[in-house]
Amino acid sequence: MPSLQDSSTTLAELKERVLAFARERDWEQFHSPKNLSMALAAEAGELMEHFLWASPGESSEVALQPQKRARIGEELADVVIYALEFANATGLDIAANIEAKMQANARKYPIDKARGRSAKYTEL
Amino acid sequence: MPSLQDSSTTLAELKERVLAFARERDWEQFHSPKNLSMALAAEAGELMEHFLWASPGESSEVALQPQKRARIGEELADVVIYALEFANATGLDIAANIEAKMQANARKYPIDKARGRSAKYTEL
Amino acid sequence: MPSLQDSSTTLAELKERVLAFARERDWEQFHSPKNLSMALAAEAGELMEHFLWASPGESSEVALQPQKRARIGEELADVVIYALEFANATGLDIAANIEAKMQANARKYPIDKARGRSAKYTEL
Amino acid sequence: MPSLQDSSTTLAELKERVLAFARERDWEQFHSPKNLSMALAAEAGELMEHFLWASPGESSEVALQPQKRARIGEELADVVIYALEFANATGLDIAANIEAKMQANARKYPIDKARGRSAKYTEL
Repeated sequence: MPSLQDSSTTLAELKERVLAFARERDWEQFHSPKNLSMALAAEAGELMEHFLWASPGESSEVALQPQKRARIGEELADVVIYALEFANATGLDIAANIEAKMQANARKYPIDKARGRSAKYTEL
Repeated sequence: MPSLQDSSTTLAELKERVLAFARERDWEQFHSPKNLSMALAAEAGELMEHFLWASPGESSEVALQPQKRARIGEELADVVIYALEFANATGLDIAANIEAKMQANARKYPIDKARGRSAKYTEL
Repeated sequence: MPSLQDSSTTLAELKERVLAFARERDWEQFHSPKNLSMALAAEAGELMEHFLWASPGESSEVALQPQKRARIGEELADVVIYALEFANATGLDIAANIEAKMQANARKYPIDKARGRSAKYTEL
Repeated sequence: MPSLQDSSTTLAELKERVLAFARERDWEQFHSPKNLSMALAAEAGELMEHFLWASPGESSEVALQPQKRARIGEELADVVIYALEFANATGLDIAANIEAKMQANARKYPIDKARGRSAKYTEL
């Protein structure tokens, strides 16, 4: 049973966990922003590989197949782990940056213009 | 001033925020696992672009230049937003998956073998 | 009018062009395999961005819209330019590697088993 | 012995090879621009994985280690195969687009300004 759950785990707790893991192994020397951004992108590629040939609708079913679901959960974990390590390496606060970005997105995509449309804000 | 901070923000709170944002715009129809994994990988590519030609050491300095830092924070936010939306679309718990993945990594990379080494576990 | 065309242009000609461009600017110092693989992946992300929210079928239409088509052609060019520079930096022969890979793929995906199926060879 | 070599192989010949391979397997139905751009980006991620923790200088040595070199050649082949299939699916001419892009790059990066500098053209 996992003891961590999204409902009660803060980003700071996860950042501390991954930092402790890296420090115990003397891995901070490899964790430059450049290297971590590469690792993050490579893991994002692995996550994507599960859905290459599925239609968007089929991809929801792929994510429910038990064997695939376990692998997909691992790739998602890898992506977020590297995002947390990137935040550790740069001192960036993820939640604060998400809040700021969502405020900017709310201005770019006002509800009345953006509803039901996938167009980029420059084309709304 | 951002009201969200990593120190006090749970993943569940952020998941709810991005879900509310998507629902207000009727965007859930676009948020299949396939599409979200693509968007995540594309944003990971944008994050990486800030560090293409810098050495690993220089990349730490890049992340401290005020203008770049603001942009890098936005790209990091975009990456994590899509990871949260992917978790929403698939029902995956990020913290639980991270915990499981770190336990697996601890077995693959025992401290005494992995210390100071960047080799893959199959080559330790 | 472009003077180069796929019908008459060899990979070696393109490799020489991009090498001359880099040498004139003293850019070979930046063109390590690591940096070029990052740049390639970042450009692949930009190519993908044109199709994030389109269905697979709609993506064919996107690629025919004149404005988008011009941009998509540029991103495709960027991807292949970095692949050529990667080949220059490593001394790898692209055509020979493609031939070898296609022979391996032909063994992994025999026509009778693979016809009309998108499954990975391990699942055929 | 490979019979194809960069010195004598045109892009059109490679495009025909990969098209024949897909047609024999009735795979064109999966080869939308969206899907192919994803596959290309995923393979670019795999290429990058060989160099995550190496410095730029070390990455040149990685690409010379026989076992790694064989794998790296395969990943490079995969990237270019998907670029060729993308060109087939969209009708884009790769060489013509590369020529146009290099002319644009020559204007953005004049030799006297760009020599020895990795800055983006907007920052030269």
